Amino acid sequence: EIVDAVVGTLNQTINTSDVEQQLAGKRVLITAGPTREPLDPVRYLTNRSSGKMGYAIAEAAAAMGAEVVLVSGPTQLSVSDHIKRVDIETAEQMLSAVTSEVENCDIFIAAAAVADYRLKEVATKKMKKQGSGLHLELEQNPDILATTSIANPDLFTVGFAAETNDVIEYATGKLKRKQLNMIVANQVGINKGFDKDSNQVDILTADGEHITLPEMNKKQLAFDILDIICQTYHKEKPHAL
Amino acid sequence: EIVDAVVGTLNQTINTSDVEQQLAGKRVLITAGPTREPLDPVRYLTNRSSGKMGYAIAEAAAAMGAEVVLVSGPTQLSVSDHIKRVDIETAEQMLSAVTSEVENCDIFIAAAAVADYRLKEVATKKMKKQGSGLHLELEQNPDILATTSIANPDLFTVGFAAETNDVIEYATGKLKRKQLNMIVANQVGINKGFDKDSNQVDILTADGEHITLPEMNKKQLAFDILDIICQTYHKEKPHAL
Repeated sequence: EIVDAVVGTLNQTINTSDVEQQLAGKRVLITAGPTREPLDPVRYLTNRSSGKMGYAIAEAAAAMGAEVVLVSGPTQLSVSDHIKRVDIETAEQMLSAVTSEVENCDIFIAAAAVADYRLKEVATKKMKKQGSGLHLELEQNPDILATTSIANPDLFTVGFAAETNDVIEYATGKLKRKQLNMIVANQVGINKGFDKDSNQVDILTADGEHITLPEMNKKQLAFDILDIICQTYHKEKPHAL
Repeated sequence: EIVDAVVGTLNQTINTSDVEQQLAGKRVLITAGPTREPLDPVRYLTNRSSGKMGYAIAEAAAAMGAEVVLVSGPTQLSVSDHIKRVDIETAEQMLSAVTSEVENCDIFIAAAAVADYRLKEVATKKMKKQGSGLHLELEQNPDILATTSIANPDLFTVGFAAETNDVIEYATGKLKRKQLNMIVANQVGINKGFDKDSNQVDILTADGEHITLPEMNKKQLAFDILDIICQTYHKEKPHAL
């Protein structure tokens, strides 16, 4: 049935005025974009996430009737006025924003590409060259997805796994380890996934479903992902929708 | 006399149609933006340079009659069609582009914020978390400005020094060590310099001049910097202009 629903929406053009209000009355929290982990006041570590997937999900969720909060790293994108956007730079700031916004949320979709590591010590002045080599000591950032999922067992939590290799294997591990309801897995690399307008994903759910979607525009994909979220959410919480 | 010229241009509005063609017949090579130094296919080290200063200088030099080549790191900016733009990501790619473009150039203006260091080994697959800590081994990038300046003694070479502290001291050292004709020094930090539309700079020349310009719009500043470059170039090479 899920596959049918997906193929159905694939053949539809997106006309937000006649989107079914499947998420009416729901509060959806979404993260998007990269984080930046500073080395000093001018340098930082980051990644190639453009934020396009997360922003598309935020717009689609709003079109489906949800009240949307978008916690976003630095991107070049803008969102509709009725979406509450909270801008952050670092993973720590993202965790703090998510923790304050998650209360009363029904669904959490973590589409941000959060930096796994940050600098152990951030220089307050611009670092000067120190000979031919430099060692950077990094420490792990908080795991925003796992922290939020485990602290909020009633929250329907969706993660993303962007991998260059062994995509399904890593995604399955992440789904279980972080106690997610669903994970959206995609391959990234040269000209794939990040900073592109289209994407090809696999969706895995906690109860063992595996849906392979064809490559499509991220805006269309956002609606398909949300349709699958609604159906899975409904199955797990028949009283809720 | 230089200070008078500067104050003169400050009070002018920029109307590119009546800009004096001081750079007619000159070939000017400009670098702009940050570089990105990859850790793996998705992560990289970079800095907060927006490219605005270098792009403004490229446009101003073209308006003053120069043939302009712009070697640019990743930015959100565009340039006029008559400017040749070469896009690169890493410092090594920037050096390679500069080395192929510098022949027959009269003036080289290095406004890019080149990463001093790159990863010693770039992972070909996305790195996975490896416990609580991570060491990154960095090695020095080529010094594009010094390499180009020293290999081309007849090239009029202008560097930039963006510093959080001891700005004039660092800039003076860089001017001498890299055998530059001129250096443009400015302070950067929170809300200063990088990614802003205005800037306040000091200009130091190899023959000991020190000009402090007031804070101004980067587009106006570009014309003022080029005016000072033309005057200094003229003094050093009276046969050339």
